[in-house]
Amino acid sequence: MSATWGTLFQVTVFGESHAAGLGCVISGMPPGFPLDLDLVREAMQRRAPNRTSASTKRQEKDHFEILCGYLHGRTTGTPLAAIIRNRDQHSGDYKELETLLRPGHADYTGLVKYRGAGDIRGGGHFSGRITAPLVFAGAAARQVLAARGITVGAHVQEIAGIQDAAFNTFSAAELLLPEQGEFPVLEAERGREMLEAVEKARLELDSVGGMVEVAAAGVPAGLGEPFFDSLESCFAHMMFSVPGVKAVSFGDGLEMIRWRGSEANDSPRLEDGRIVFASNHSGGMNGGISNGMPIIFHVAFRPTASIARPQDTVDYVSGKEAVLRLRGRHDACIVPRACEVVKNAAAVVLLDLLMQADSHGQ
Amino acid sequence: MSATWGTLFQVTVFGESHAAGLGCVISGMPPGFPLDLDLVREAMQRRAPNRTSASTKRQEKDHFEILCGYLHGRTTGTPLAAIIRNRDQHSGDYKELETLLRPGHADYTGLVKYRGAGDIRGGGHFSGRITAPLVFAGAAARQVLAARGITVGAHVQEIAGIQDAAFNTFSAAELLLPEQGEFPVLEAERGREMLEAVEKARLELDSVGGMVEVAAAGVPAGLGEPFFDSLESCFAHMMFSVPGVKAVSFGDGLEMIRWRGSEANDSPRLEDGRIVFASNHSGGMNGGISNGMPIIFHVAFRPTASIARPQDTVDYVSGKEAVLRLRGRHDACIVPRACEVVKNAAAVVLLDLLMQADSHGQ
Amino acid sequence: MSATWGTLFQVTVFGESHAAGLGCVISGMPPGFPLDLDLVREAMQRRAPNRTSASTKRQEKDHFEILCGYLHGRTTGTPLAAIIRNRDQHSGDYKELETLLRPGHADYTGLVKYRGAGDIRGGGHFSGRITAPLVFAGAAARQVLAARGITVGAHVQEIAGIQDAAFNTFSAAELLLPEQGEFPVLEAERGREMLEAVEKARLELDSVGGMVEVAAAGVPAGLGEPFFDSLESCFAHMMFSVPGVKAVSFGDGLEMIRWRGSEANDSPRLEDGRIVFASNHSGGMNGGISNGMPIIFHVAFRPTASIARPQDTVDYVSGKEAVLRLRGRHDACIVPRACEVVKNAAAVVLLDLLMQADSHGQ
Amino acid sequence: MSATWGTLFQVTVFGESHAAGLGCVISGMPPGFPLDLDLVREAMQRRAPNRTSASTKRQEKDHFEILCGYLHGRTTGTPLAAIIRNRDQHSGDYKELETLLRPGHADYTGLVKYRGAGDIRGGGHFSGRITAPLVFAGAAARQVLAARGITVGAHVQEIAGIQDAAFNTFSAAELLLPEQGEFPVLEAERGREMLEAVEKARLELDSVGGMVEVAAAGVPAGLGEPFFDSLESCFAHMMFSVPGVKAVSFGDGLEMIRWRGSEANDSPRLEDGRIVFASNHSGGMNGGISNGMPIIFHVAFRPTASIARPQDTVDYVSGKEAVLRLRGRHDACIVPRACEVVKNAAAVVLLDLLMQADSHGQ
Repeated sequence: MSATWGTLFQVTVFGESHAAGLGCVISGMPPGFPLDLDLVREAMQRRAPNRTSASTKRQEKDHFEILCGYLHGRTTGTPLAAIIRNRDQHSGDYKELETLLRPGHADYTGLVKYRGAGDIRGGGHFSGRITAPLVFAGAAARQVLAARGITVGAHVQEIAGIQDAAFNTFSAAELLLPEQGEFPVLEAERGREMLEAVEKARLELDSVGGMVEVAAAGVPAGLGEPFFDSLESCFAHMMFSVPGVKAVSFGDGLEMIRWRGSEANDSPRLEDGRIVFASNHSGGMNGGISNGMPIIFHVAFRPTASIARPQDTVDYVSGKEAVLRLRGRHDACIVPRACEVVKNAAAVVLLDLLMQADSHGQ
Repeated sequence: MSATWGTLFQVTVFGESHAAGLGCVISGMPPGFPLDLDLVREAMQRRAPNRTSASTKRQEKDHFEILCGYLHGRTTGTPLAAIIRNRDQHSGDYKELETLLRPGHADYTGLVKYRGAGDIRGGGHFSGRITAPLVFAGAAARQVLAARGITVGAHVQEIAGIQDAAFNTFSAAELLLPEQGEFPVLEAERGREMLEAVEKARLELDSVGGMVEVAAAGVPAGLGEPFFDSLESCFAHMMFSVPGVKAVSFGDGLEMIRWRGSEANDSPRLEDGRIVFASNHSGGMNGGISNGMPIIFHVAFRPTASIARPQDTVDYVSGKEAVLRLRGRHDACIVPRACEVVKNAAAVVLLDLLMQADSHGQ
Repeated sequence: MSATWGTLFQVTVFGESHAAGLGCVISGMPPGFPLDLDLVREAMQRRAPNRTSASTKRQEKDHFEILCGYLHGRTTGTPLAAIIRNRDQHSGDYKELETLLRPGHADYTGLVKYRGAGDIRGGGHFSGRITAPLVFAGAAARQVLAARGITVGAHVQEIAGIQDAAFNTFSAAELLLPEQGEFPVLEAERGREMLEAVEKARLELDSVGGMVEVAAAGVPAGLGEPFFDSLESCFAHMMFSVPGVKAVSFGDGLEMIRWRGSEANDSPRLEDGRIVFASNHSGGMNGGISNGMPIIFHVAFRPTASIARPQDTVDYVSGKEAVLRLRGRHDACIVPRACEVVKNAAAVVLLDLLMQADSHGQ
Repeated sequence: MSATWGTLFQVTVFGESHAAGLGCVISGMPPGFPLDLDLVREAMQRRAPNRTSASTKRQEKDHFEILCGYLHGRTTGTPLAAIIRNRDQHSGDYKELETLLRPGHADYTGLVKYRGAGDIRGGGHFSGRITAPLVFAGAAARQVLAARGITVGAHVQEIAGIQDAAFNTFSAAELLLPEQGEFPVLEAERGREMLEAVEKARLELDSVGGMVEVAAAGVPAGLGEPFFDSLESCFAHMMFSVPGVKAVSFGDGLEMIRWRGSEANDSPRLEDGRIVFASNHSGGMNGGISNGMPIIFHVAFRPTASIARPQDTVDYVSGKEAVLRLRGRHDACIVPRACEVVKNAAAVVLLDLLMQADSHGQ
């Protein structure tokens, strides 16, 4: 029953796609931190629609306004609230929707949960747009992490069966490379192919899904808990809040189900007298706790639910079966934008765990 | 930093593999519920080792004692605490371990997090044995769910590449079928093949991983939240607490990343005037909220970390590289026992969400 | 580390006295509730300054804007966010303060906690102004409670030694009577005397404290928990968040320390076949759980810290002792406005507990 | 709905007066801490009955057994669970009670909340006996605090109108003085008078209440939060969990309601270049945050509800009014034993807040 995430670094999100606005409240932000709002804006911009043809034509600028918690370029340490106003809404596009349940969307479940009172326009509170304030919070968290030597990166690993290279060196340069180009991949050519596949699906009035790889380097060993707040638990909890996510896998998680233990185990070894691991199949964690190796996980997205082709459904007002023809502007693939969301959302998780690990009690 | 799960139905677990005991405290148990302890014992027994050759020879009976919260065959509604004493420990087997880091285990991360003070014997608090009290709590939750018409089931979907059939009808009979036989599968023959594969790996001083399918039928629509406590978030958070879990996927989650939206969308339709869905690729949830269809998810387990073959590692006391030769008794595959764990753990999540949905505020 | 209150009915507050704005996010609001914004405005107005000479001259209208969670006069059930913009700030008045620690204020503790980065103007996040969004949330909660037959009321019990009558009948009419007049008391004449005492203190460049009595009628038996969330614990936790509160007492709590048990015990008796109590010294609760009698507690406020007379203090920049002469506009007594705050804050607590009690698990 | 306290230092309590046992689970205990169990036993002993004639004749030794989280004299850092078995129960004494509601007890509220399923014998989960595991947890927390230079002390401030001296120097010696004698007071003679008053009440088949003063010295400035987890909120939340507590007041809280602001404000001044306060009316906190001065608060206890004289009540089975004649062993005043409880409970709160303050995020 919670719009609030976190133990020490807490983020509360609110908003609906077609209400006056949306936003977030960040509680537990370290005081006096020189938060660079331009970096936040850039992250918001990477999530915003219309960067490429893969995305909806809706022109939201996602301009945010900070209401409190920020003074003279620094965080005050008290709650930081930011709001984003909705401007470019074509609520008319959603008229018909108000009675036809959109397949793959939360229309029916929202109807049940909120007893018909929810704002269904544009997905309301279920809209991917609610990830904008989450990106705001994550872009702030990423800066605090960076100041502590931790880099969080992500790229589109796969769309429509086309695969990008995997992160390999986990240098800051590599982790941030996907932010440099038009499309968040390591190999630009793969990005172009992905875009073509997305465009093809769109022209066929359909959509595609994909996979994002997230990684964090510089994370100290010791973050996370055995029960119940394992590192995996905390990351997965957050990732599965993001609309469209249907699977999360850590390290070589999915492949490992068919491996032998002798292949899956990462052997400790010494490097300059320090304990490291000879491989990183586990994705940087053992027993729910970070082991000092890069953290790696994959987030799987289902194909966008909003597609232009006619779909069978039910009119919940008339109580009759009907055919839905969606209008409005929709991404034929949300993965490129979602890549920015999960990267920043991962930073929110990581900062909270880092702050918890700072506590030692003696 | 939390050994406690839940909002209204709360479970706290404690214990170490070689300490005096382990157990759980359940807070928020409905009062006056006629909890059948024999059913709890059966679940504990299914998780306990040595049912089949797939499992360690260690003979723990996992006898529990209820300290409070239970009177005259019924729950009192106040905290219910159960403890399990450790008996059959061969701590001697672990002598060498106390200085050699076991690959794939939490020895190193536990060492860092607990600054060398943790009880490393048998994995200590990281031992799979800590899932015994979780099974206790889940076996209680399952009974409360059953009284409300909800059945939770699980079976081994795959071990060493050998696949069982998938749940199909989601009838209570089907969901509970895996509990009837020697091995928790739908097709007994597949179970025998899996056991052979496990035995083969064991003889080769190695181990194998696998996948469990979990399903729940009878779950009403409306459980879960858009942010941050989606149904997926809550289930995944719990699943990733279970040792060895590396990936969690909902519905056809993993496959869907290569599907088109038109294939992935589940169309609403009418059945006796009631809204249902023509397919269930989403695994019984949309927008993080249950949609009344069966809940389905898959949990991937890495191969058991404890293997008998020699492994390179580091002696953290001498600070030198070394070769580890594990003694002691270890499962060559934990998936059959883990199947019982994730099923019951899923029930804990579901009951908590159900109780939250009971609240309506008006 | 938490700006968020509650388990099922959650309220997050944010803002600073001289930042762009402040506000709250309410999560868990029952969906479809016909929230009357005029009633909310009236509550905000009762808390706002300048109703009487007891209060600061600062002319804030506390106009709120709802960003989301409210559509066509009803709550949507998703997070409801409201913001209030700061307008009438004379930040110049606070120039000197930025280096002189105000006695009785949180300047020093804020300085330490936020390492000098906090917004100290007007008290920043410590300002009583942050109670405005709390009143918003409480005014919403009160309406939901009213729809379930629960009335929450409060009046100034004492200011500067002058005492109002105590609540006696606990009828809705009596509980709401203090909202009718200029001053929140049961006996208007006492209110006038209190105002005179406040004015006298103000002319003497000083301030006074006082006590508020809060009561709730119609609360069903069974709310609250033995450990750790007793009804008293939850109310007190919230009350002590309100600036200036230094003591909280339930029923005849303070008097009872000198009573005998035979005087303090409330005897159960029958009334129309229903169990009630012959007296209500306990204030409507036993063992941390509501007993069906009216809930009664008292909240003690210290005298306003901001006084016009010169005070010894320290300049924390120069590191020298100094004399502070406060300018700006300050209430010589916050109790009349605080009365509205604690009443509404109590409603937030009560609704959360009521919603928890709705959950039954079977 | 929570049997668990805390954010980083978490304590879960369980048990009933006449069940097999009770206990606690401590999560977040600093690893490797040399916990002295003798000191814990001494605290348990001070809380245990029968030290003086003021207390019940019931002979519980409160022997605890540690199940996990403790190895070779040190904490492991993983959950520490301790159980206490119930031995000396005279359940027969409670036969009649099972149908007669005891005035001043939680019999009726427990009956409603737990729908008749609660264990009513000896108060069940509402029994003051549940404070034994809380003392265990607090005695552990106190040792961790002591290692960081923080001393927590308490004494009986008043019983039956007889007053002890107040804490004055706040030296460790003074704060621990009440633990040296037979009765937890600063002035032994006052203790004797209090005992006589208690004995007098007991002979008159009645009981008395009183007040405890709690103080903590060495607490660094900066603990606590403005909203909602003020230092006062956290302490009060915990204190009001303790059976019998009806009021909590910080510093000169209660007196201050009749003071002027000029009397109540504590002026900052310099001492060896460090900022301190010339007085400590606020009890060591401003704006919900510790200010480096000794923390002081008072906890008011109602007279013991169990009295031997006949009382009017209701038989909830027959549904008729009746007269209750309590048998069994009952304290005529719980304040001396409660003094140990609130002192240790305060340490639990303080350690949790201290650990939270250790987190800095950068």
